[in-house]
Amino acid sequence: MTTKFNFENFYSEKSEEQEISGPAHAKYDFAVAYPAPETIPSEGLLEGLKKGLEREGRDLAYYPHSFGSRELREFIKEKLKNDRGIETTIEEILVTHGSGEANNLVIQNLTDPGDTVITEEFVYLGTLNQLQKAKADIVGTKLDDKGIIPEELDKLINKLKSEGKNIKYLYSIPEFQNPTGSTMPSQRRKEVLQILSKHGLPLLEDDCYVDLRFEGESQDSYKSLDETGSVIHVASFSKLIAPGLRMGYVNAPIEIMKRLNYLKTSGPSQFVSLAIENFLKNEMDSHKEKITALLREKRDAMVSSLGENFGGTGVSWTVPEGGCYLWITFPESVDMAALQQECFDEGVGYLAGDRFSPSGKSGTNSARLCFAYETPEMNREGIGKFAEFMRQKKVI
Amino acid sequence: MTTKFNFENFYSEKSEEQEISGPAHAKYDFAVAYPAPETIPSEGLLEGLKKGLEREGRDLAYYPHSFGSRELREFIKEKLKNDRGIETTIEEILVTHGSGEANNLVIQNLTDPGDTVITEEFVYLGTLNQLQKAKADIVGTKLDDKGIIPEELDKLINKLKSEGKNIKYLYSIPEFQNPTGSTMPSQRRKEVLQILSKHGLPLLEDDCYVDLRFEGESQDSYKSLDETGSVIHVASFSKLIAPGLRMGYVNAPIEIMKRLNYLKTSGPSQFVSLAIENFLKNEMDSHKEKITALLREKRDAMVSSLGENFGGTGVSWTVPEGGCYLWITFPESVDMAALQQECFDEGVGYLAGDRFSPSGKSGTNSARLCFAYETPEMNREGIGKFAEFMRQKKVI
Repeated sequence: MTTKFNFENFYSEKSEEQEISGPAHAKYDFAVAYPAPETIPSEGLLEGLKKGLEREGRDLAYYPHSFGSRELREFIKEKLKNDRGIETTIEEILVTHGSGEANNLVIQNLTDPGDTVITEEFVYLGTLNQLQKAKADIVGTKLDDKGIIPEELDKLINKLKSEGKNIKYLYSIPEFQNPTGSTMPSQRRKEVLQILSKHGLPLLEDDCYVDLRFEGESQDSYKSLDETGSVIHVASFSKLIAPGLRMGYVNAPIEIMKRLNYLKTSGPSQFVSLAIENFLKNEMDSHKEKITALLREKRDAMVSSLGENFGGTGVSWTVPEGGCYLWITFPESVDMAALQQECFDEGVGYLAGDRFSPSGKSGTNSARLCFAYETPEMNREGIGKFAEFMRQKKVI
Repeated sequence: MTTKFNFENFYSEKSEEQEISGPAHAKYDFAVAYPAPETIPSEGLLEGLKKGLEREGRDLAYYPHSFGSRELREFIKEKLKNDRGIETTIEEILVTHGSGEANNLVIQNLTDPGDTVITEEFVYLGTLNQLQKAKADIVGTKLDDKGIIPEELDKLINKLKSEGKNIKYLYSIPEFQNPTGSTMPSQRRKEVLQILSKHGLPLLEDDCYVDLRFEGESQDSYKSLDETGSVIHVASFSKLIAPGLRMGYVNAPIEIMKRLNYLKTSGPSQFVSLAIENFLKNEMDSHKEKITALLREKRDAMVSSLGENFGGTGVSWTVPEGGCYLWITFPESVDMAALQQECFDEGVGYLAGDRFSPSGKSGTNSARLCFAYETPEMNREGIGKFAEFMRQKKVI
């Protein structure tokens, strides 16, 4: 009989176990973080890819430039200029496997164990997870319905400094924040930048929902407001086209680029690059109109159903101008984490607010609802079911 | 005037600079590590993708299972069984961004700074680079034209143990080794496994060229010969289809999988998965026949031109049964690194042997020549040019 090999003594210090789980879907799935599946432009992508392969199919035989194809980076450069007011060069653009890889490279580059990283009070789970793995001391700064409150940020930094903390950077999603759905006005962003500048701190701007605005005016990106080169800007094609492509990018000063180059392990897929570049070159505007119109309809359906079902019960929710989620807040005594599984079993999926909290302690009476994935009809129905469940539980 | 933000005090301990460079191509490019660009199955991939998107285009809206789609992993499971004699489950298969990410995850999982890792005497540059970044103490074990010499490996391990080294694993490319082109007979692999087992050491098997056999019999994979679960098996679609897809995989015991799950930052592209799965399901055999026939023709062209131009000059070369490269060795006094740039300027690209050496000290009189990228005619011509250059330099 053979003895099984035991790896126990071979693991590195950074190795840990993490259970492997696939996604589970509720009937009314407001727990996911997906865009509208009806808008996946399969045909456009196929057409784009076909065109790209005709032009340079031989390029698939090459290992791509580790920063991504010149053509896609040229396209991103123009997009950053036109959509975000950012003037940059293709040397300062690195194409990544989604914004997840982009954020992770920046976090690796700037974070040692024990370093303090300031985030919004509630944080996108992917980044929260990466910061935890980097063993950062994560501290959330207070939010209101317009995002980070500048004075609170200043107070927090002073407090952390007085405690001798080694603050490394602020991580912020200023537009359609995940999970709260809030958008910071340009003026607030300017104030945040002034405060950071006063304290000599850089900023990691995660702009990955920005293409999903369906009403109101686009606000200036932090990066376009910064004249000192202290902002690292991350974005993604996951929301504009589809997460299944796995492609995003980071835009940062060249000295940062050289370090991300050292830290990265594999270049982006040329196959995906060709499809994205050639699809968006022709159809970005019309595609964006299509998805944002649908997202608006879906948000409206959810919000109106929230009004019908939760109006006058002391429950409040954000009404985002874009993106995928809204944030619902129940009376303080309600424990949304405790109800989550049972509500899922009843057919309605949500994510409890405390999961997004760095301390795990705030947001217990809140939840994130994704309005982007289900149809408007399902949004309406599902919120009805949700209210029914909450009534049964005597929450409302 | 604005002062530029200075990131100098913000970098983590693992952050370093690495210059960013795109690829440079010689007229006769034997320096690259690319498969035959004529064989890139653009139409087949487009067809496959189209079929895949029709079946499950909505899936692009999901973030894929972090291990890759079930369908692609089922396909890989069957491929491992049929082509490599490996019995496994889809839970033990993780789809990655090329074999580069796969190797890197395993290296991160098993390597702390200062750990000793044994490699072949000459090592694939991507892995060598990753091991260096992991700050491993990399020690090469002697090769002959049939790969690792088992007795030499045993001697080396004993020596390292007597020096108190903390040996973590052996990294090996047993089939069409990069850079030497050698293939280890099954018997040798068994002996290597016995030696490792005696010393209680695991093995990282990089099998990424195995689909490119154009003559001789396929040899048993280490993993199929191992009954103890001590082998981690990595492979890729880069050579079978195209590097530009950026997709590979790792097959390892479930306890390793949970740790790779912890260490990984982003799941694979569902877009690429759909194309690969649906293309290979229908056309793998015919495609493999096509590429291997062409590779054989290209190898033959290079080898016959080497015979005509370098025969009887004291120069020797390997004649691989598959893969992309052969290894050429000049008299001991020749410094191939010193000649590389000048030869490139004369139109012939190669990679000097010492670049593949962990110590940087052996292989100075050798070079790797890739026969897979240029046409047979260019291979013939280029080797003629190469000989002309070497004659001018009075090397031959």
